[in-house]
Amino acid sequence: MKIGILGTGDVGKTLGKAFVALGHEVKMGSRDAKNDKALAWAKETGPKASAGTFADAAAFGDIVVLATLGIANESALTMAGCDRFRGKVVIDTTNPLDFSKGVPPTLAVSGHDSAGERVQILLPEARVVKAFNTVGSLHMFRPDFPGGPPDMFICGNDAEAKKQVAGILKDFGWGVIDSGGIESSRYLEAMCLVWVLHAFSSTPPTWNHAFKVLMK
Amino acid sequence: MKIGILGTGDVGKTLGKAFVALGHEVKMGSRDAKNDKALAWAKETGPKASAGTFADAAAFGDIVVLATLGIANESALTMAGCDRFRGKVVIDTTNPLDFSKGVPPTLAVSGHDSAGERVQILLPEARVVKAFNTVGSLHMFRPDFPGGPPDMFICGNDAEAKKQVAGILKDFGWGVIDSGGIESSRYLEAMCLVWVLHAFSSTPPTWNHAFKVLMK
Repeated sequence: MKIGILGTGDVGKTLGKAFVALGHEVKMGSRDAKNDKALAWAKETGPKASAGTFADAAAFGDIVVLATLGIANESALTMAGCDRFRGKVVIDTTNPLDFSKGVPPTLAVSGHDSAGERVQILLPEARVVKAFNTVGSLHMFRPDFPGGPPDMFICGNDAEAKKQVAGILKDFGWGVIDSGGIESSRYLEAMCLVWVLHAFSSTPPTWNHAFKVLMK
Repeated sequence: MKIGILGTGDVGKTLGKAFVALGHEVKMGSRDAKNDKALAWAKETGPKASAGTFADAAAFGDIVVLATLGIANESALTMAGCDRFRGKVVIDTTNPLDFSKGVPPTLAVSGHDSAGERVQILLPEARVVKAFNTVGSLHMFRPDFPGGPPDMFICGNDAEAKKQVAGILKDFGWGVIDSGGIESSRYLEAMCLVWVLHAFSSTPPTWNHAFKVLMK
């Protein structure tokens, strides 16, 4: 498959590399086609990796991964051109974190609203699936924990798209919990904060934890 | 210790019985001193169990457990008399669930607000600790899951009170994750919905699951 990644941070780089490791072709998009981080990432990741603009990556991907800062989603998607996502599966990994008062962050969007819902509204003809937002980039691919595998929570309005993302998550090494429609992003983005607050309960913060749902 | 329980539902009955099993004395309070459910619960639970009004239970407890419907917290606490909680540890188990549109429910209070914060505001001199709100009553005491023990998330502003509640949780069979101050109730109450939505992903709903945080 062809995967477009929007964003050049740790999440974009980690997921891009993971998709390449599984045999997919990946284009990492950023605001500038000559973005140093994206070019360096593509060079280091090999011939199946390339770099371009947000628009290039959105056009390239059968699946597009949104890995921008949550508070920059709207500007990135607008730059990419919302029409380019028509019919595509969009994996929204973002959290609308507000660092204006320092760490730990709070949520800039919450209550009866969420980043996931806003992405779906901006891309009405895309099939948005929230995923990868309740763990840090260190453990997104092949998570290896005692008592694992951990579980990834997903939500979205399109059953077929969720099935496809669940398959990807299984390939990545995750269990999958389906939390319903895209409006459940409200709960999954809040859950990110539980993950973040646990990180900050140690000094220095530690990022080596992931959720699991135990079942009988 | 003496434990007051406000509420006669499954959570109140389960936790009350658990405290008695661990050797504590428990008074279950309700709107009416002659509440049939509370009297039956006390009779069946034995000599360390008793029933009374909300005010009786609040006055009785060294620790008071709030186990009313989340949307009834204010009325229950007002009936109990907010002064009666002065200096006490209050374990807030509630979620502000809104069933007005059927099941699964949504949150009647969310965003920059939560049931836990409202309880702390109503009881400014109590030491409120959120706990027991991310699992159902079936598994609150001696949770027995493959891969367990599961973890309970707690939050509150008073470190000593959280330490005491963490000790109770360990006696009950839980791992404990401290999610910070009482404002983190926003995230823990949202997490309850992730638990609930997983229940409703099966038909009929199943309640045999609990969260754990895997760590390296």
